[in-house]
Amino acid sequence: MLNRVLKPLATVTGSLTAALLIAAAQAAPLKQEDLSVAEVLRDRALESSDAYSLVESLTVEVGPRRAGTKGDERAVAWAQQKMQDLGFDRVYTEQIDVKRWARGHAHAEVTAPFPQPLVVSSLGYGASTPEGGLNAEIVEFADVEALMKAPARKVKGKIAFINKRMERARTGEGYGPAVQGRSKGMRAAAEKGAAALLLRSVGTDSDRFAHTGMMSIDGVANPVPALALSAPDANLLEAMLERGKPVEVKLDVHNEPLADGPSFNVIGELVGREKPEEVVLIGAHLDSWDEGTGALDDGAGVAIVMETARLISELPQRPRRTLRVVLFGAEEIGLVGARQYVDAHQDDLDNIIMVSESDFGAGKVWRFDTRIPESKFTIADQMMQLLAPLGIERGNNKSSGGPDSSVFVARGVPAMGLYQDGTDYFDYHHTPNDTLDKVDPDNLKQNVAAWVVMSFLAAEMEGDFGRVPAEH
Amino acid sequence: MLNRVLKPLATVTGSLTAALLIAAAQAAPLKQEDLSVAEVLRDRALESSDAYSLVESLTVEVGPRRAGTKGDERAVAWAQQKMQDLGFDRVYTEQIDVKRWARGHAHAEVTAPFPQPLVVSSLGYGASTPEGGLNAEIVEFADVEALMKAPARKVKGKIAFINKRMERARTGEGYGPAVQGRSKGMRAAAEKGAAALLLRSVGTDSDRFAHTGMMSIDGVANPVPALALSAPDANLLEAMLERGKPVEVKLDVHNEPLADGPSFNVIGELVGREKPEEVVLIGAHLDSWDEGTGALDDGAGVAIVMETARLISELPQRPRRTLRVVLFGAEEIGLVGARQYVDAHQDDLDNIIMVSESDFGAGKVWRFDTRIPESKFTIADQMMQLLAPLGIERGNNKSSGGPDSSVFVARGVPAMGLYQDGTDYFDYHHTPNDTLDKVDPDNLKQNVAAWVVMSFLAAEMEGDFGRVPAEH
Repeated sequence: MLNRVLKPLATVTGSLTAALLIAAAQAAPLKQEDLSVAEVLRDRALESSDAYSLVESLTVEVGPRRAGTKGDERAVAWAQQKMQDLGFDRVYTEQIDVKRWARGHAHAEVTAPFPQPLVVSSLGYGASTPEGGLNAEIVEFADVEALMKAPARKVKGKIAFINKRMERARTGEGYGPAVQGRSKGMRAAAEKGAAALLLRSVGTDSDRFAHTGMMSIDGVANPVPALALSAPDANLLEAMLERGKPVEVKLDVHNEPLADGPSFNVIGELVGREKPEEVVLIGAHLDSWDEGTGALDDGAGVAIVMETARLISELPQRPRRTLRVVLFGAEEIGLVGARQYVDAHQDDLDNIIMVSESDFGAGKVWRFDTRIPESKFTIADQMMQLLAPLGIERGNNKSSGGPDSSVFVARGVPAMGLYQDGTDYFDYHHTPNDTLDKVDPDNLKQNVAAWVVMSFLAAEMEGDFGRVPAEH
Repeated sequence: MLNRVLKPLATVTGSLTAALLIAAAQAAPLKQEDLSVAEVLRDRALESSDAYSLVESLTVEVGPRRAGTKGDERAVAWAQQKMQDLGFDRVYTEQIDVKRWARGHAHAEVTAPFPQPLVVSSLGYGASTPEGGLNAEIVEFADVEALMKAPARKVKGKIAFINKRMERARTGEGYGPAVQGRSKGMRAAAEKGAAALLLRSVGTDSDRFAHTGMMSIDGVANPVPALALSAPDANLLEAMLERGKPVEVKLDVHNEPLADGPSFNVIGELVGREKPEEVVLIGAHLDSWDEGTGALDDGAGVAIVMETARLISELPQRPRRTLRVVLFGAEEIGLVGARQYVDAHQDDLDNIIMVSESDFGAGKVWRFDTRIPESKFTIADQMMQLLAPLGIERGNNKSSGGPDSSVFVARGVPAMGLYQDGTDYFDYHHTPNDTLDKVDPDNLKQNVAAWVVMSFLAAEMEGDFGRVPAEH
């Protein structure tokens, strides 16, 4: 299914658009023939790229793959095999160390005044209840800041309930404010002597799924059970509290912290024909949360960057620089694969001329952000000539390149970002409902079309972007 | 919140529409002054009816209420108290006997060739696996008929997987064909010697919820475990099977059949001022499935018929006939409350001049069906003059009146049906996702507006519909 062959490119150069010819005539940095190749790649991606088969394969044949689990091991094997099958020049892994954790059961129910069960999910690294569970009154906070400001006597022995809603936005910008409750909530609850934390899910849906996710636990002296509640369940608690009587909840939770263990970044390369030591790094993360099959987060990204490289590999010759696809491990538990990658390769980071990542689901790309010197904006403008027909607008120059990429950006590596439409991304994020049926194959074609333009041109262009200071 | 008072009706008769005046002038069966009252009731319902508060109260203060459970007991108490608070003239219960069943755990996972967990829900009255679970190959069937026709050697010892999709429709007409797999599948699987049944959920959504529901189990000699799979999980099995290798699934299920126990029909009446022995029976069912809070099925219906009666109770005088609101018990497990009601009252069924039920969610009413003699169509036409402005069209004369009502219809009781838009009803039906947030308060106002027109006029009109033979 993935063995289509591109026609020799010499025959198609004639399709170069008038706009491009004009741009080329102005002696802009990117060469006319390279833009021409990028345009052909783009149109072939729209027509025949098949990232969908890759995400289908990953979700069906591997499924959930939380870092350090058996599923993660299978995902690593899958990725290596698939990269070999796709014809990458080099395929290898680099070991990383992950803090492992085993999810057990998590049951919650209101015991008074209106007994009924609740739908919850343990947040990553959450503690267990005592054997047999615990029953306590809940105390509501508008957000984690309110919990942090509360007097300990108000919280001690109770279950802190953080009830902050997340706003829907195409950019996903509601996530930042809402996720504070997840990252800091358990710490704040533990410090006040709470028995446990209940958190309205960080999500935009109204489905009865709890959204799990990672918590910041370093240095937390006495971790407590911490559970996300589905939105309808948070509504239920809210409605019960409005009736003015104490609301009691019973929790029965079991999880296990395990000894640290290995995971892997999986890396595939098309080796550059002229400057193999210089690298355009395009990434996604291979791990997922454990309750869905990780189709949107981040199977789609894995498929997009792999298919991008595959399309470029079908050109008659390799690009000037190396195109390195990195499928990061353990992103979900704190960008672990990216951090350890950067540490392990710190002497070589200057050779990474640009980093980018696909990790925001499977919506269409609508914006092209960069993090390059202003003196190089003409390159982005030239790329935009090929991206604009895909419905993509020019964004800002503050791109992080994506979650894992941000670790590179912090070390001065230039970045680009193809921003996906995330309007419904947080409906599914970190829930059992992150499954293949949420992925539209046509949207993936549009993504790959944008990615081949950006990736090929960055790998082929003369010159580079230098470094971009982190405080940029 | 529910103690609004209607203005004396004498002051508002002037709002009668021109169309109604013309209709009245033609000496049609319904009197002009009654139509006028119905129109006022309708407009007050649109403006100020508050069925939403009732369904909110039922879902928050009671929640899941499967027949024969503690939740069911609480629902019965809730309904009696609420009917008294709303000012019904008589509130009483009638005991019914239900076959009880305790849902335990249900875990399923693919063990080969691609190990990963599945989301399932035990179907009502399903059996348990042996202690420690069972592991077996799955064998796929397009529908229950294909399973019934299959040679036993193909099924014996395996897990039968019925993989039939349900079609979406405003009328919900896709349910009938799809639900056959649920009602007959376990019986067919057991008869072929299958180890268990896996059923693609009878639903129209693509969310990772399994849709539970009742199975026909009478006379099944050796019941086997029977589980609904969410749509994404059925897709997963389908995709694995397409790869051509045997797919094995492990099931670990525990449920318990319990001794029969009591439940109740809860009944509230506005006693007729002239013919108290004649009854217009409007119903809904009080029980729900156990994984959601039963907002759509059938909390909305409960709220609609209760609020309908409340609005009519605020008239200066009672309608000529008795308006009887029956909240049936144990509908979900086979129309048990309705069947036992009809059996207990068989000598009095001729006094029920019309039956109707609200049990199709919380969408707007879009069609008015009847089951009355053709000689009485003018009455329906007159009602339509008040219903049409609500966006309601005239439907057919084959109404069952609703699931519980169909038991009355089988005994010749005339029926009416206010058909709701069920386009998304089967996205939520019998899942944990049947929660209050799926109910739109404005849609409920439109429902109550239609229900007051139909209920008041049927209770007030001169003459009746006689009987309608079941073979009608």
